[in-house]
Amino acid sequence: LGVYGCLWKAICAYPNLWELTEESILEGLRGRIAIPRGSGVILGIGDDCAIFRPRGSKEDLLVTTDLLIEGVHFERATHAPASVGHKALARGLSDIAAMGGAPRFCLVSLAFPQSVGQVWVNRFYGGLLKLAYRTGTVLVGGDLARADRVMCDIVVAGSVPRGRALRRDGARAGDSIYVSGSLGGSALGLATRLGRGWKRHVSPEPKLALGGYVRQIGATAAMDLSDGLSLDLRRLARASRVCAEIEMPPVFPGATAEQALHGGEDYELLFTVPAETRVPARYDGEALTCIGRMRRGPGGQVRLGGRPLPALAYDHFRRK
Amino acid sequence: LGVYGCLWKAICAYPNLWELTEESILEGLRGRIAIPRGSGVILGIGDDCAIFRPRGSKEDLLVTTDLLIEGVHFERATHAPASVGHKALARGLSDIAAMGGAPRFCLVSLAFPQSVGQVWVNRFYGGLLKLAYRTGTVLVGGDLARADRVMCDIVVAGSVPRGRALRRDGARAGDSIYVSGSLGGSALGLATRLGRGWKRHVSPEPKLALGGYVRQIGATAAMDLSDGLSLDLRRLARASRVCAEIEMPPVFPGATAEQALHGGEDYELLFTVPAETRVPARYDGEALTCIGRMRRGPGGQVRLGGRPLPALAYDHFRRK
Repeated sequence: LGVYGCLWKAICAYPNLWELTEESILEGLRGRIAIPRGSGVILGIGDDCAIFRPRGSKEDLLVTTDLLIEGVHFERATHAPASVGHKALARGLSDIAAMGGAPRFCLVSLAFPQSVGQVWVNRFYGGLLKLAYRTGTVLVGGDLARADRVMCDIVVAGSVPRGRALRRDGARAGDSIYVSGSLGGSALGLATRLGRGWKRHVSPEPKLALGGYVRQIGATAAMDLSDGLSLDLRRLARASRVCAEIEMPPVFPGATAEQALHGGEDYELLFTVPAETRVPARYDGEALTCIGRMRRGPGGQVRLGGRPLPALAYDHFRRK
Repeated sequence: LGVYGCLWKAICAYPNLWELTEESILEGLRGRIAIPRGSGVILGIGDDCAIFRPRGSKEDLLVTTDLLIEGVHFERATHAPASVGHKALARGLSDIAAMGGAPRFCLVSLAFPQSVGQVWVNRFYGGLLKLAYRTGTVLVGGDLARADRVMCDIVVAGSVPRGRALRRDGARAGDSIYVSGSLGGSALGLATRLGRGWKRHVSPEPKLALGGYVRQIGATAAMDLSDGLSLDLRRLARASRVCAEIEMPPVFPGATAEQALHGGEDYELLFTVPAETRVPARYDGEALTCIGRMRRGPGGQVRLGGRPLPALAYDHFRRK
C-alpha cells in the first residue's frame, strides 16, 4: 500500500499516464519497497538486474525480465519470427552482460493470437533456442496463453561471483567512461530497414564475454545501452551521484550524431573504470573507447563537449 | 533447432493449433532441451517450478512464471484490479507452495492499454504488494509496456533446502493420495459470481505453510490444483509412472461433483505420502483428506470408484 500512495503521487504529477516514463514508475515502486534483512535480496528495482544471494552460495544470482510486444517492440510484417525469438532472449542476456554475469537459465512466456501460424511459433522458438544454446542458457520453463497480439515476456537469470556484480551506482568522480563498439546502428537500421544497421536492430548480440572481462579489470559501474546513450548515461550518473562529461562517442557507419547519442537498442556496454586502469583498445573484436570522465556535480547531469546533453526519452513507453 | 522439429511434429499431430494443449507444447519443448551438467539446473520444464542449484548453496532455488491476460484469465468488468494483482502473485506463490518452498522474490511485467486508468494500475499493484508483503516476497523488478489489453507476467522465486523440493515424479505404488480443503469452489464461483465461491475464484490463498509442512512429513510428490483434479492428478501420476485410484474428493459447499473433479483454480494441494505416514486430519485450518492410493499400472491413468476418470481439459489454452 506504500507503493499505492507513491505511484499515485507519481501519476498525479503527470496528467497523462503515457507521459509517465517507465523509469519514473519503477523508481516510484523502488522507493516504497522495503527489502527485509535476511531476505537474500541484495539489490531490487532500478538496475539492469536484481541481485539475489542464495544462502551459503559463492555466487550471486542476477535476474532480469523484459517484455517484447508486437506493435510496440516489433512488427510481424517486418521482423522475421526467428529474429523476434533471438531478440527476446538477447535483450535479457544483455542485462546479464551489463552486470558482468554469465547466463544460467531463462523462462519464456508467450501469448499469441489464432492468426499466428504454427510456422511462426516454431521459428520463434528456433531463433530463441539457437541463441540460448550458444550462450549456455537453459530454457527451464514458461507459460503459454492466447492474446490479440504476440507478446513475449522473458526472464533470464545469470550468476556472478559473490558481491562482484557490476551495478549502476558504483561510478566515482574521476572515473573514465567507456563504451564498446559504435552507437546509432540500431536506430539507423530502424529508419532504413537495410544493411548492417537493420541486422543490428533485429539481431543484437549480447556482449557477454565483454561484460565478464570488464568486471575482471575492475570496472566501477556498468550498464547496457538499451535506451540510448543520453538517457542511459544519465541513469548511471544519477545512480552514482556524479556528473558525466563526454565527447562524441564512436558513430556507427552511416548513422547520424543524433542516432548515436539518443538512439536505443544498440546493446553495447557503457562502463566506468578508475582513471589509472588500463583498458585495451579492443576486446573480443569490439572497440573500447574512452568517451569522457565522471566529475563531482549534480547527480545525473550529462555534458557533451561542455554543454548539457538532453536525455531524449527513448523510453519503453514511447519507443516504437 | 531440436525443439523446432519437435514442436513441428507436435503441431502436425494436431491440425488446429488451438487443439494443442499447453501441456503437449511444453512436453515437446522439454523432450528436446538438453540440460548440460554443471549448469546448476536440476529440473527444467514440466513441474510446478524449475529447480536451480546455486554453486555451494544450502538451498535450491524454485522458479515459476505465469501469465494473466485480460479476456482469458480475467475480465476487467468483473474482476476488481486489486484482485487481479492478488491473483497474479497468488498463482505463482501456489507453485512455490506445491514444491514445499518458501517464497523469496518476484518480478512483475505489466502491459496495459491507454484506456486503463491510473486508479486501476494503482490498485493492481496495491493488491499484489499486499500479498507480497504478507508472504515475505520481495518485488525486485519488472518491465512495463503498452498493449491492447492488460497482460501481466509474473515470476516468483522461492527456496527450499537442497535436494528437498517436492516434485511431481516422486510418487510410488502404494502411496496414499491426499488433497487439502475442498474442491470445485472456484468453478462454482466463476459460474455464480457470488459468495465464498467467487471469493475463492478471485482471491485464492496460496497454501505456503501447508506446502512446507507436507515436505517435512515426507511427502513423496506434490502439486497444486490449478487446472482441476482430473487433469492435475493425471499429470502427477504420469510423471511418477503410476496409476491413481481415488474416491470422490471433498466437495466445496454448493459445488457439483463435476466442478470438484474437473474445475480449475482451486489452488489446493495434491500430495502423496508413503502408506505408513500419519497425516493429521487438519493443518493450519485446512482439512487434509485421503482420497485414494497409487497403484502399479499404466502411468497417468486415474480411476474414480473403479472407473476411468477422463481428464477434462481445463487447459490454459481453453479455460475461460
